[in-house]
Amino acid sequence: MVLKKAVSAKRASFALGLVSGELKNNAILKMADALERNAEAIFRANQKDVRQALMQKLSEAFIDRLTLNEKRLKEASEGLRQVAGLPDPVGAIIRTWQRPNGLQISRVRVPLGVVGIIFEARPNVAADATGLCLKAGNAVVLRGGSEAVNSNRKLVDVINRAGLEAGLPPGFVNFIETTDRSAVGEMLKLDKYIDVIIPRGGQKLIRFITSHSRIPVISHGEGNCHVYVDAAADLKMAEEIVFNAKIQRPGVCNAMEKLLVDMQVAEKFLPVMIKRLQAAGVEIRGCERTRKIVRGLKTAVEKDWYTEYLDLILAVKVVYGLDEAIKHINKYGSRHSDAIVTENRENARRFLREIDAAAVYVNASTRFTDGGQFGIGAEIGISTQKLHARGPMGVDELTCSKFVIQGEGQVRT
Amino acid sequence: MVLKKAVSAKRASFALGLVSGELKNNAILKMADALERNAEAIFRANQKDVRQALMQKLSEAFIDRLTLNEKRLKEASEGLRQVAGLPDPVGAIIRTWQRPNGLQISRVRVPLGVVGIIFEARPNVAADATGLCLKAGNAVVLRGGSEAVNSNRKLVDVINRAGLEAGLPPGFVNFIETTDRSAVGEMLKLDKYIDVIIPRGGQKLIRFITSHSRIPVISHGEGNCHVYVDAAADLKMAEEIVFNAKIQRPGVCNAMEKLLVDMQVAEKFLPVMIKRLQAAGVEIRGCERTRKIVRGLKTAVEKDWYTEYLDLILAVKVVYGLDEAIKHINKYGSRHSDAIVTENRENARRFLREIDAAAVYVNASTRFTDGGQFGIGAEIGISTQKLHARGPMGVDELTCSKFVIQGEGQVRT
Repeated sequence: MVLKKAVSAKRASFALGLVSGELKNNAILKMADALERNAEAIFRANQKDVRQALMQKLSEAFIDRLTLNEKRLKEASEGLRQVAGLPDPVGAIIRTWQRPNGLQISRVRVPLGVVGIIFEARPNVAADATGLCLKAGNAVVLRGGSEAVNSNRKLVDVINRAGLEAGLPPGFVNFIETTDRSAVGEMLKLDKYIDVIIPRGGQKLIRFITSHSRIPVISHGEGNCHVYVDAAADLKMAEEIVFNAKIQRPGVCNAMEKLLVDMQVAEKFLPVMIKRLQAAGVEIRGCERTRKIVRGLKTAVEKDWYTEYLDLILAVKVVYGLDEAIKHINKYGSRHSDAIVTENRENARRFLREIDAAAVYVNASTRFTDGGQFGIGAEIGISTQKLHARGPMGVDELTCSKFVIQGEGQVRT
Repeated sequence: MVLKKAVSAKRASFALGLVSGELKNNAILKMADALERNAEAIFRANQKDVRQALMQKLSEAFIDRLTLNEKRLKEASEGLRQVAGLPDPVGAIIRTWQRPNGLQISRVRVPLGVVGIIFEARPNVAADATGLCLKAGNAVVLRGGSEAVNSNRKLVDVINRAGLEAGLPPGFVNFIETTDRSAVGEMLKLDKYIDVIIPRGGQKLIRFITSHSRIPVISHGEGNCHVYVDAAADLKMAEEIVFNAKIQRPGVCNAMEKLLVDMQVAEKFLPVMIKRLQAAGVEIRGCERTRKIVRGLKTAVEKDWYTEYLDLILAVKVVYGLDEAIKHINKYGSRHSDAIVTENRENARRFLREIDAAAVYVNASTRFTDGGQFGIGAEIGISTQKLHARGPMGVDELTCSKFVIQGEGQVRT
């Protein structure tokens, strides 16, 4: 079953790579309309999944992620419309040059081929991911969490019909319906048909996939993000950045998880900052020096420095200047997004160069690490790996390139 | 032991990423000089390995690859000098833009970190690969074939001392000396310290590594390269291209392995072409139609269409026009380099778009797929995978990028 879907996707991918940008955009817009037109049927299918989840007493957070409502479906259809409006990456010439022997060489953007998406509870991923992959000329094989199987089946059915009506080749989107867990393992072996796997879900899923896949994986990792308040920081600015990075949306990967403060300003900065964070409901875990400055805090233990809380918890450390801050972040960080607040240009320059992360900031909140905020359009995830894609992954990262060489009979001597 | 080397490389990588282009170039030039100055000692170490290999009655081809001589050492040192002359990729700004909220965003080229090179008999890889990785600011962990352990140890020792003298951080190059095969397995698990694995060797080695590595792998694959002679080809040009692509160096991955000929020109083209190839010592294996046009040829069986011979063997197929040619190549090819010979612009355009390969040619020999020939400088291999690098991989492909964001206190609302 999995094999059949993968073969169908591979076959479709050859046709999809040749489809015009206009046809793709038209199909994506038709999908957006179809989602809205079929809202009632989609909600009915989703309610089946939600009822099952309630009966199985799954967690509230899980059921929240699983649930589709007007607002979320509207986000999905608007997301698709946004993707339709992006420039078509396929066929773009990255560079073109001529060799002394007259050979004309171009590096041209082409689709990856078939993208396998393995995702967990959120059924809207089926629409988001398909839109982005399709924009980049790729066929898709979707494997969603078994708890969302009714929602996913319905969503894919609606999207598939809209795409076919618009003239896309059959097999452009494929849904692996079985709830059998072994289907994932089977999928990860089909390197002959699937060109890349993108997991969308928690760290456990991602670790399982990276250690079992024969197919290259592009994954978004954890965001153990730091803000370092330098001795030369504008402390009022620092307060606003720290507050925003922690509070604005604590459950996402670009939220701040660790605050480092130079000891020269710690006594002035921390009492005000911690009071404000605590008033907003943040639990503070401090290093020894922090706990001397602000009494009554929990202790941050070694494990805290590695942890992505995704919650209203913050670990705070007082450091001996920039060197210790850089060393700490490069040791404990997850290479996602880290910021320095400083008015000192040399310290800023060193932080930007020496921190090993997908996104490094001076005087801004880490919350900006996002395709939309960066102005590169919708994203399929934020990669913390180094190969192929690093940081917000947009449609360009869903393509690869080929060399196109035009000659007049040149041979090698 | 393997772990210690990987940790040492990781530590060095942070310092290496900050080293100036001048220092790196100076170090690479010093390595080139040191190879030449220590030629006698290197040859002595190499002779030990060669004697061992002779005693073990290893194949002639293997012993040839293992042997270092004046010419090969000169190639290695000249290769390093060429790498020193390339532009420094590190710190290059790929793109820079401003957001409406004033955030200044740049995408900057940075080193990958630590590159693990796993290679087989050719000891010169130790010098070539280290030079390229170093140019891109990466530390290196080398694991060579056990049969070349004396040569590799000596080469790395010479390179390491030259680099340290030039001011590179200790640990910039690391050699795993043990001939114990389990060292490779151990190395492939160290994803905390090694950022990418590049195998240099045969398909068996590459398959072992891609199926066992937790670390992302960039590998060069097979080159089952095709030349398709279209009905609208200039047949004299086609003859020269086919002859060159097959004969000029048959043992390399960009040599032609398959010849497809449109049936409209097959009767005119094939007798002359095959006679010329046979005169040059090429064994021809033909499809049924080919064997009707030129009598006495061996039969090409199904397996032939998949095979990279790397030898003076060529399989020939007569096809019903461009569609069959494209279908055949996309089915049996290895996505390396494929060429069409034609004067028909539309057929050329279709071939370039529809063939799924790292390099696609019109009217030129496939033998040009090479970093030097493409004008992108020395290469560490030719990738047939799609992620991160496709086609000749130069120093740019040994880097990744990071987003650098400069603000004035921006927070997300």
